[in-house]
Amino acid sequence: MANWKNFDSLNSYKKLQDCECVELSKVMSGSEGAERVKNYSVPMACGMNYNFAAKEVNDEILGLLQELADEAECIGKYEELYNGAVINTGENRLVLHQLTRGQLGNDVIADGVNKREFYLNEQKRIADFANKVHSGEISNAAGEKFTTVVQIGIGGSDLGPRAMYLALEGWAKTNNKFKMEAQFISNVDPDDASAVLKKIDLAHSLFILVSKSGTTLETLTNQSFVMDALKKEGLDPAKHMIAVTSETSPLAKSDDYLEAFYMDDYIGGRYSSTSGVGGAVLSLAFGPEVFAEFLDGAADEDALAKNKDIRKNPALIDALIGVYERNMLGYPSTAVLPYSQALSRFPAHLQQMDMESNGKSVNRFGEAVAYPTGPIIFGEPGTNGQHSFYQLLHQGTDIIPLQFVGYKNSQYENDVVSEGSTSQKKLNANVVAQIVAFACGKKDENKNKEFDGNRPSSIIIGEKLTPKSLGALLAHFENKVMFQGFVWNLNSFDQEGVQLGKVLAKKVLAHETDGALAEFAKIFDI
Amino acid sequence: MANWKNFDSLNSYKKLQDCECVELSKVMSGSEGAERVKNYSVPMACGMNYNFAAKEVNDEILGLLQELADEAECIGKYEELYNGAVINTGENRLVLHQLTRGQLGNDVIADGVNKREFYLNEQKRIADFANKVHSGEISNAAGEKFTTVVQIGIGGSDLGPRAMYLALEGWAKTNNKFKMEAQFISNVDPDDASAVLKKIDLAHSLFILVSKSGTTLETLTNQSFVMDALKKEGLDPAKHMIAVTSETSPLAKSDDYLEAFYMDDYIGGRYSSTSGVGGAVLSLAFGPEVFAEFLDGAADEDALAKNKDIRKNPALIDALIGVYERNMLGYPSTAVLPYSQALSRFPAHLQQMDMESNGKSVNRFGEAVAYPTGPIIFGEPGTNGQHSFYQLLHQGTDIIPLQFVGYKNSQYENDVVSEGSTSQKKLNANVVAQIVAFACGKKDENKNKEFDGNRPSSIIIGEKLTPKSLGALLAHFENKVMFQGFVWNLNSFDQEGVQLGKVLAKKVLAHETDGALAEFAKIFDI
Repeated sequence: MANWKNFDSLNSYKKLQDCECVELSKVMSGSEGAERVKNYSVPMACGMNYNFAAKEVNDEILGLLQELADEAECIGKYEELYNGAVINTGENRLVLHQLTRGQLGNDVIADGVNKREFYLNEQKRIADFANKVHSGEISNAAGEKFTTVVQIGIGGSDLGPRAMYLALEGWAKTNNKFKMEAQFISNVDPDDASAVLKKIDLAHSLFILVSKSGTTLETLTNQSFVMDALKKEGLDPAKHMIAVTSETSPLAKSDDYLEAFYMDDYIGGRYSSTSGVGGAVLSLAFGPEVFAEFLDGAADEDALAKNKDIRKNPALIDALIGVYERNMLGYPSTAVLPYSQALSRFPAHLQQMDMESNGKSVNRFGEAVAYPTGPIIFGEPGTNGQHSFYQLLHQGTDIIPLQFVGYKNSQYENDVVSEGSTSQKKLNANVVAQIVAFACGKKDENKNKEFDGNRPSSIIIGEKLTPKSLGALLAHFENKVMFQGFVWNLNSFDQEGVQLGKVLAKKVLAHETDGALAEFAKIFDI
Repeated sequence: MANWKNFDSLNSYKKLQDCECVELSKVMSGSEGAERVKNYSVPMACGMNYNFAAKEVNDEILGLLQELADEAECIGKYEELYNGAVINTGENRLVLHQLTRGQLGNDVIADGVNKREFYLNEQKRIADFANKVHSGEISNAAGEKFTTVVQIGIGGSDLGPRAMYLALEGWAKTNNKFKMEAQFISNVDPDDASAVLKKIDLAHSLFILVSKSGTTLETLTNQSFVMDALKKEGLDPAKHMIAVTSETSPLAKSDDYLEAFYMDDYIGGRYSSTSGVGGAVLSLAFGPEVFAEFLDGAADEDALAKNKDIRKNPALIDALIGVYERNMLGYPSTAVLPYSQALSRFPAHLQQMDMESNGKSVNRFGEAVAYPTGPIIFGEPGTNGQHSFYQLLHQGTDIIPLQFVGYKNSQYENDVVSEGSTSQKKLNANVVAQIVAFACGKKDENKNKEFDGNRPSSIIIGEKLTPKSLGALLAHFENKVMFQGFVWNLNSFDQEGVQLGKVLAKKVLAHETDGALAEFAKIFDI
């Protein structure tokens, strides 16, 4: 059994505090910089690499981070997790999202069921269903094929699947794997559902209702909205809807759905892209074999995360450098900057995954911690970000660590040469230029044109964004966040911070309010 | 002439440092909280209100903020700006975006031209052009109407216009003002243009090339991309493209375009939504009279910003409270959280507007400042955010000030009643619940379920998101950022921080690199 201790009670915490900082602009210059780029790199799955040359670390600090990984028992805790320990202590739950894509350790038997078999069986059921939709065996009342799939879900039932769909849409269209267009309805704002319903052909649309508990207010409300619209068109909602939920939810085994697919309480919403939550929509949009490749990539990356050597474990070293930046260097945020338009909503997914997992002030035992935990995560694709908030990143008064992602090749394989280079080369020239600009800066007599440098970044470099490499990228960040939670001694798998707002919103709707809340409700005529 | 002084040299800076902090959870409870909601509100244009009841201020602090506004000569500087002073000193330029939507002071004559007349004339030319496109007088080679407009631009030529288009799409569709679908190509990533071109009907698409200088790498590259695609379809690019640029740019008066519309150097990219940069695409998408309403709303809000009394000047008080939070309370970021799906990309636009304007470490005279300036800006629409990063906002170790926006009515006027309330009521119940949850928190014996509260927020409350109220909302934030720049003694209107990356990217493409940059370029096979 692993020992769960607060970060600041570890010996390596003190040692990290006492060790000398790296002057990034110096070490990234000249031949030393070139050597760092070559050496400070960890292989990932699918031929990707995590390069941390431009992070404020050196061999001494890396040695201490290895000590920290060992002392915090990061790998031991990971082993316990994938072997089925109750890691989500607050909710008394196992944490099994890695098991949706591979078997890392022993069989996990819970509630009398072999969980790997359960997840595989649901994948197979989804695959069969998707194939039947694609072949037309399952069709609308008029016997016509469905052309559009609409996911109704919020939070983890929306952000991850939506980001993954957008990430693979171009690849699928280029590789003849595009089966159905996907749309997403998430917000309880009626304008969200209205806008989507205006865009689609209802008679040929299949809706996926996604809610683990079957009680999510926004999702059930949007279900009513959609059912209403279907009925108004003379369509039978039960012939246009499937559900992804837990077997114990009110949505399971209901006549309201063509079919229901199951997940369970051991898959947190923000970790559910590789479960049926992502599986149904992605299998319908791109075919089950594309979803299977995505899972394979994630499984390969999960396996790398078992390595005790931080130089061979990209998620672990990424996590530890992040902790070092947060707790020793005092940086409160991280920007995620993919140089790939297909990853346009990937930062929004990471924002949930990271901030909802580690945005906590008490440790696993419910005691306040005395150190900062999860950072703010935000980001937009480069080069768009360059023409937006990079001004502050380069010359603002605060330092913001950066996480770049880039690929050698585009997805659509469609490009144009202008001024002697393709767009893809221009894109990549920009990302490498930014890394060095942030690290090294530039002196100038005009201080307004001076760049201090010393702004750290890492980059994940891949050949191409494919289903498999996307799976690996996703798993990398999931495991990074998990390892950071281990070091900070948090339960990264609950989210009690979302409860109070829900409770108060119900009171407002029931007119059970006083004080400020009643006054605000009055302004809104609620 | 106004005096430009560093913030920390002002008397009010010292006084604000010395004054006692407000305990938000206390003052927002009970009848005191109710009183604050009623009193701490400033009217905006279009019937909106800026409510700051849940900010960490009281009458004493507000008095000092008024002193600060006076001492920093915020209104005097605004007057100089709209009367045509060279406020953008680094680039030796006037700052005239307010003049695109109204005349606040004296005539501004620059380069021998009455600038208000120049902007009005371009608006009229755009309106005439848009009307001819809508009537079919201007059509494609086959004499058929254009159905789609595609903006090619990046940064300010993309984020603002895109956010405004999305903000009004639902309103236009509901109010019979929807003329043409708009798409946007921004990223130099070839997959961005490929994805958009795959979606549209080229033969019926009109492209707007937007670049003030006419030299923006990404935009010119994407122009080549689009011209290539048009030619491959046997279409004449010159019959499918217009330009929005400055009169001195290489794009002006070129045969490559059906028509060119002009802006000038006095409109910064991030402030250009009310110039031709937003005007062309919005007039084509929704009609010139919708764009005119949008300008009217902005003009009304600009007029409010002239008020010296901070209790009657919503942008100014918002700005000052933000400065207080940044410099006295030490909060490094702000989340923008619109409870309106139509504002889905409004936070991304504010991110540029704010971070590119005030993300600076030197004052207007090129001297380093000793205080933090522009914060990190990020955000997503509520209720989506609630199911994402709100966990950290409620229970994380750092405090993040929040800026909510909400409307009493939806845009599509299409709603459903479930469990006794409409979706719109549920949406609004959530935003008011969040304000109080963040401010007041909740005690709990289980510390994992405890909420400390004391997390400040403000809210802008409107009747409905319309062209006019959107204009007012936009101008509010533009003026807020301007006032903060005045207090911090920054030049908020240049962006030298974007230059170094551009220079290095060119070197990479020219293979003129060594050290780390050469190694990274090698990895990417550039």
